[in-house]
Amino acid sequence: MTGELPSPIGLHRVLDPPGVLPQAAQRLDTDPEIRDDEVRLRVERLNLDAASFRQLERAHGGDGDAVRSEVVATIRERGKMHNPVTGSGGMLIGVVDAVGPRSPLGLVPGDRVATLVSLTLTPLAVDDDLAGWDGRGEQVPCSGHAILFGRSIAARLPDDLPAGLALAVLDVCGAPALTRRVVARAATDLGRPPVVAVIGGAGKSGSLALAAAGDAGAGRTVGVVPVATEEAALTASRLADAVVLADARDPVALAGAVASAGGPADVTVVCVDVPGCEHGSILATADGGTVVFFSMATSFAAAALGAEGLAADVTMLVGNGYAPGHADYALDLLRRVPAVREMFVARIG
Amino acid sequence: MTGELPSPIGLHRVLDPPGVLPQAAQRLDTDPEIRDDEVRLRVERLNLDAASFRQLERAHGGDGDAVRSEVVATIRERGKMHNPVTGSGGMLIGVVDAVGPRSPLGLVPGDRVATLVSLTLTPLAVDDDLAGWDGRGEQVPCSGHAILFGRSIAARLPDDLPAGLALAVLDVCGAPALTRRVVARAATDLGRPPVVAVIGGAGKSGSLALAAAGDAGAGRTVGVVPVATEEAALTASRLADAVVLADARDPVALAGAVASAGGPADVTVVCVDVPGCEHGSILATADGGTVVFFSMATSFAAAALGAEGLAADVTMLVGNGYAPGHADYALDLLRRVPAVREMFVARIG
Repeated sequence: MTGELPSPIGLHRVLDPPGVLPQAAQRLDTDPEIRDDEVRLRVERLNLDAASFRQLERAHGGDGDAVRSEVVATIRERGKMHNPVTGSGGMLIGVVDAVGPRSPLGLVPGDRVATLVSLTLTPLAVDDDLAGWDGRGEQVPCSGHAILFGRSIAARLPDDLPAGLALAVLDVCGAPALTRRVVARAATDLGRPPVVAVIGGAGKSGSLALAAAGDAGAGRTVGVVPVATEEAALTASRLADAVVLADARDPVALAGAVASAGGPADVTVVCVDVPGCEHGSILATADGGTVVFFSMATSFAAAALGAEGLAADVTMLVGNGYAPGHADYALDLLRRVPAVREMFVARIG
Repeated sequence: MTGELPSPIGLHRVLDPPGVLPQAAQRLDTDPEIRDDEVRLRVERLNLDAASFRQLERAHGGDGDAVRSEVVATIRERGKMHNPVTGSGGMLIGVVDAVGPRSPLGLVPGDRVATLVSLTLTPLAVDDDLAGWDGRGEQVPCSGHAILFGRSIAARLPDDLPAGLALAVLDVCGAPALTRRVVARAATDLGRPPVVAVIGGAGKSGSLALAAAGDAGAGRTVGVVPVATEEAALTASRLADAVVLADARDPVALAGAVASAGGPADVTVVCVDVPGCEHGSILATADGGTVVFFSMATSFAAAALGAEGLAADVTMLVGNGYAPGHADYALDLLRRVPAVREMFVARIG
């Protein structure tokens, strides 16, 4: 396709329906021939979004072969890994294979990178039917190719960390960056160190969010977890000042648990990938406080109507997966805070 | 039920599934006997949420009788008007019929009020099968009763405005309150009057948001509308410094239109009730800017993944329908800004 004027956001790769952005497209063009500002990757591994994988697992009753078949079919039909039910994707690891002469990404062939834009907008073709994957985990060994646009974001994998670990961190690196920003702002606005609750504090984005909250001047951090094993792990990590057990889908229980641990929270960060956590997060948050939703299982209407119905004066943020410097900051937290690294290693094995 | 300990958020009215908040419930208890902190209203009129009505209209191909039957069935089955497809409801007008001895709402029997909490969490029983409604508009004449909880919000209808007009304003009064707050904050942060774009500027929440933006110190306001009739009406109103025509579902067109009118916007306010406006709103917003989503048709995943995919450093807010003083502020704007009143009158007839 070289020679035609490319779109930095990949409009030229949209096949159906024409004119929409790649993320909204039903189908993308995976042609391996790159345009002047594109980069082609040889794909090594996909990391499915947690909400997407959980949906697939449930839909097929844990049958790994059926999960694999559905993922292969989705990629073939859509030219991208875009779960039609959850609307989410994930990210991938690959090696730079070809770089267009006008690519602004600064990559060279041979660079090992992780994509920091969603799989829902990344042209992807698989040539091994994902034969190396048992369909039972989010990390998917994969052979194929993917395309990066001019404005895509990819991070070179660091030399000092195992690839699987770096990938897991980069997958959620928007969470600590935005948490840092919101907590710092709350500290300024309130004139005191804020109370920060992280729902799902023992998870990947949750443990990074807790570390970021501490980093940004939180006065007290509360980690909320759903099961005793996570309670023990998060308590042992000392990433949170208090750890409480609650089902985040039960608004009354969640608000009560946060209150018992020093809440309500000035900032509540939602990092659990199950539906139905909107109302509890709102109820757990102080008047004038902020809720940041990072879960792709969040319902916009449930959040908006929930706050209104509870007469709750809270600011609610859609967790943006991008912020300048987000990848470096998340990797930096992992290196600086041993407990975060331990939580990740325990989780990804 | 008098005598038992009531919940200020109505937990005792939830029949199915037990333990959830009223908004999340499948079915509410509409028992007309009130608890100590409740208020019972004699209902006069429902005002369906625009997204909900549009969905019903489309689902039944504009057949008003079928729309009416479905709304009656929904209310009967759920004990509330909660559209199962859009997840949204609306609000109602009624006259206070009975007030529990411990109600904190300050209402007395005979007060004519509008509910400012969603119909999705308001126990509602209809006794006339909505016989006075043709199923062809959002405003639904209705006979029945509704229940307010201790923490519900209801506004006494002002004496100086027609009820239909006040209801239409109160239905969207969260939008101007939050727009004012966000625009004022942007002005402080930027150190200059911000550029504000309102997508759907000729609508009810849109015209109020434009007036609020001007009120809060916007340097330039841009109203985006989908059709020439709205372009003419909004231009004539002078509520916006510039009016541009664009399909908000087309990201490239929307961003181009806002740019051509003095954008990108520091603050973009989304007031259109159609799906698919997330990416365009993000693309139309400056780096470091804020997008406020008021449309119930907003997809959380599309917003989150869209910003990430576009590498857009924007703050995205879920439009909270509640803010302290929101009703008074919206009514005040209507009284102070004749053009807003004219837009409302033209729209509601």
